[in-house]
Amino acid sequence: MDQQFLDDFDTMSSFGQTPAGGVDREAMTGPDVEQRNWLGAWMRERGFTVTTDRIGNQFGLVEWTPGAPYVLVGSHMDSQPLGGKFDGAYGVLAGAHAVWRIQQEVEKSGRIPKFNLGVVNWFNEEGSRFQPSMMGSSVFTGKMDADTALKVTDSAGVSVHEALEAGGYLGSGEGPTPAAYAEIHIEQGRILDEEGINIGLVDATWAAQKYHFIVHGEQAHTGSTVIADRQDALLGAAHLVVTAREIADEFGIHTSVGQLNVLPNSPVVVPREVRLHMDMRSPDSDLVKRADEKLHQKITQIEGLAHVKIEKDTAHSWDLLPYDERGVELARGVAEEMGLSHRNIMTVAGHDSTNMKDTVPTVMLFVPSVDGISHNEGEYTKPEDMVAGVTMLTGVLDKLIEGALGTPSL
Amino acid sequence: MDQQFLDDFDTMSSFGQTPAGGVDREAMTGPDVEQRNWLGAWMRERGFTVTTDRIGNQFGLVEWTPGAPYVLVGSHMDSQPLGGKFDGAYGVLAGAHAVWRIQQEVEKSGRIPKFNLGVVNWFNEEGSRFQPSMMGSSVFTGKMDADTALKVTDSAGVSVHEALEAGGYLGSGEGPTPAAYAEIHIEQGRILDEEGINIGLVDATWAAQKYHFIVHGEQAHTGSTVIADRQDALLGAAHLVVTAREIADEFGIHTSVGQLNVLPNSPVVVPREVRLHMDMRSPDSDLVKRADEKLHQKITQIEGLAHVKIEKDTAHSWDLLPYDERGVELARGVAEEMGLSHRNIMTVAGHDSTNMKDTVPTVMLFVPSVDGISHNEGEYTKPEDMVAGVTMLTGVLDKLIEGALGTPSL
Repeated sequence: MDQQFLDDFDTMSSFGQTPAGGVDREAMTGPDVEQRNWLGAWMRERGFTVTTDRIGNQFGLVEWTPGAPYVLVGSHMDSQPLGGKFDGAYGVLAGAHAVWRIQQEVEKSGRIPKFNLGVVNWFNEEGSRFQPSMMGSSVFTGKMDADTALKVTDSAGVSVHEALEAGGYLGSGEGPTPAAYAEIHIEQGRILDEEGINIGLVDATWAAQKYHFIVHGEQAHTGSTVIADRQDALLGAAHLVVTAREIADEFGIHTSVGQLNVLPNSPVVVPREVRLHMDMRSPDSDLVKRADEKLHQKITQIEGLAHVKIEKDTAHSWDLLPYDERGVELARGVAEEMGLSHRNIMTVAGHDSTNMKDTVPTVMLFVPSVDGISHNEGEYTKPEDMVAGVTMLTGVLDKLIEGALGTPSL
Repeated sequence: MDQQFLDDFDTMSSFGQTPAGGVDREAMTGPDVEQRNWLGAWMRERGFTVTTDRIGNQFGLVEWTPGAPYVLVGSHMDSQPLGGKFDGAYGVLAGAHAVWRIQQEVEKSGRIPKFNLGVVNWFNEEGSRFQPSMMGSSVFTGKMDADTALKVTDSAGVSVHEALEAGGYLGSGEGPTPAAYAEIHIEQGRILDEEGINIGLVDATWAAQKYHFIVHGEQAHTGSTVIADRQDALLGAAHLVVTAREIADEFGIHTSVGQLNVLPNSPVVVPREVRLHMDMRSPDSDLVKRADEKLHQKITQIEGLAHVKIEKDTAHSWDLLPYDERGVELARGVAEEMGLSHRNIMTVAGHDSTNMKDTVPTVMLFVPSVDGISHNEGEYTKPEDMVAGVTMLTGVLDKLIEGALGTPSL
C-alpha cells in the first residue's frame, strides 16, 4: 500500500516535470489540467464521486450517510513556475490515499461513520498565475466572492473563468458541506529535518503584512535627461527592495519582494512606473507592526530622494493566527498511538487550511523538508517521511469522521 | 510649403497617437506599418522610387544621374512605448520635404547634380521591441550582420524576420549606395531651448558604456526561507540600480537602468534571476572609464552581500565620438547664409547618423526641444523651429548633392 502511494506520487510528478526534477504547472496550464484528469480517473476507479465546484475546486467524495456533511482532506496540485513536486501535490495524494484506506476499512468493518469523507484539490493555491493565492479555498469559505475571482486575469489577459472553461474545470455549485478539515503539507522549513522529527503539529500561522506598491515616476530618455530632472520609478522601487532587506535585518523578520514589473521597460527609457509585491512575516505580530511603521518612514524618504510618488495599492495583514488547539491535541494523540515523533510548529506560508480553519474544526500537519528548500525544483521530502505522513493523516481522518472535533453549526 | 509640412506632420502624428498627445508605435507594430504605408504613398505621389532593403529600411529615391551614388537624408519613424511624436519622425518628414523641394528646384533649373538624392526611414532605431537599437542603420553600414538581426526576437518570441514579413516590409538587397548622409533630430536636451538658438551643429556623441547584466540567485519561498539562506537575485539587482545612481552623483555622469526583468516574478517566490540593462554616459571618456571601474568594485561587494552572482552578459562602449568637422563647418556656413542662429552641440543619445558617419561624410543637426523632455508623450518642438529645420536641411542637402564633402571611396 505504501509502495502504491509512492508509485502514484511518481506518476503525478510526471505532469509538468522539469529537467531539474521539479514541476512547472501553474493553475489551469496544460500540466495542471492533465494531472487533474489523472486524479479524477484515479478517484472514479475507486468509486469516489468526482465533482467540481464553480471555482474549479476538484472533489472526490465517499458517502456513507446521505445528507451528512463531509470531513474534507486535501491541498493543491498547482505549482509555482519551476517549483517543487511536493508542495501541495503531496497533500492531495496523501489525502486521496487516506480516504481510500478508510473507505476499504469501513467497507470491511461495516461501521457507519458519523460524517462522510472527501478529498479536495483546491484551485490556484499558489497565486503565481492568478492573484490572490488560495483562491479556491477563499471562495469555498466565502472569504472571496466567486464572481470577483472568476474575473481575475493573468498577465496575458486570460480570465479565471476562461481558463477554467478551457481546461474543462468550470463546475457549478458551492461544493459539499464541510464538517471538518485536515491537510498535510511539507514543512518548507528545516526544523523537522534538523531535529529528525516525523510530524509537525501546526499550531499557528506567522503574522504577515503584504503590500502591492505602485511607484510613479516620469518617462524620460536615459541618456539625455539630466540626473536632477529624473523621476526614476525603478530607482524608487530599488530603494524599496533594499529597504525591505534592511528591515528584515533590523527586526529579525522575513521580508521580500518577489514580483516587480517595470513600465515601459525599454533599455533607453527612464521607467515611468514600477509595480511590486512586498511581504513581511514573523511569529511576532508586534515586530511586524513596528516593521510596517519603519517601512512607512522610509517610503517618505525614498519619495524625496528618487523624486517619485509611492502609492500603496493594496495592503493585507494578519496577526499571529492560531489553529484550533483541540485539533493539535487530537493529532498529538494520533502520533503517540502510531509511535511517530512530533512537535508543535508554526507555518510561515499560508495554506488552504488557513481559510478552512475559520470555518470548521481543522488539523494541519507537516512532514519534513530536506534543508527546508521550497518553491524550488530542489525541494525534497524522503519517501519514508511521505509514507509516515499518509499513515498519520489516515489516523486523524479516522477520528474526524466519528466527530472527534464536534459537529459544526451549519 | 511650410504649412504643407506642418499638415503632413499632423497626419503622421495620428498613427499610434495616444490620448496624452504622444505616440506608441514600436517597430513593425500596426501603427508603424500604417505610417510607413502612408509615407510610401506620399513619396510615390511625388515620383520618388520607393524601395525596402533586406532589414526593412524604407527608401524614397530621386535619380538624376543613373549609376551615381545617393546623398541620403533621414531618421526613423518608430517610437518608444508612449513616446513623443517628434523623436525620429520629424527627421524623416523633414528629409522627405527637403528632397521634394530640391527635386522641384532641379526640375525647374535643369541642372544635373553630381549625386542622386534619397530619403530613408531606418528600421527599429529605438530598440525597445527588438534589441539592439539602431538596427536598420547598423545592418546598412555593415556593423551588424543581417541574418543575425533578422533572428532577433521580441519578448513575445516574434522574430524581426517574421515581423517584417507580416508588416510587408521584408525587402531585399542592401539599399542604394550612399555618397553622404544628413539627419535632423530634436535635441532631447534643453540647451538650444534655453539659449534660444535655432540649430545645433552636432560635433560629437557622448562617450558611453552599456551593459546587460544577469543576476543569478536561487529560487525559494518568500515566507519560509530564512534570510541567511536567501540568494535573492532581485536584491542584487536593486543594489545595482541604486549603485548606478550613486555613480552618477559621484562622477557627475548620466547613468540608468531602463529595463529589468524578474524570474519567475511570482509574489511568493524569492527571484532566481534578474536581467537588466544599464547605461552610463558622459562627454568625458575618462569619467566613464573611472565609473566603470567603480561599478566593478561595487559588483563584487553586491555579490557578497546579496549572495548572488552577477554575470556581465554583454558590454558595449565607445569613447567620445566626433562627427566629421567638415560637415559641421558646411552646416555652419548654411546656417549663416540663411540667418539661422546656431551653436556646436554634442548628442547624448545615439542616432542612425552615429552609424552613417563612419561610412560616409555626414552632417547631423538638432532643433530645440522645449524643456528637453524626451522619450515622453510631453515631448515638444515649436512649429517655427520645425520649419526652420526643414529650411536648414534643404540648404545642407543642396550642397551635399554637389559633392561639397567630397566623393566617397566606394
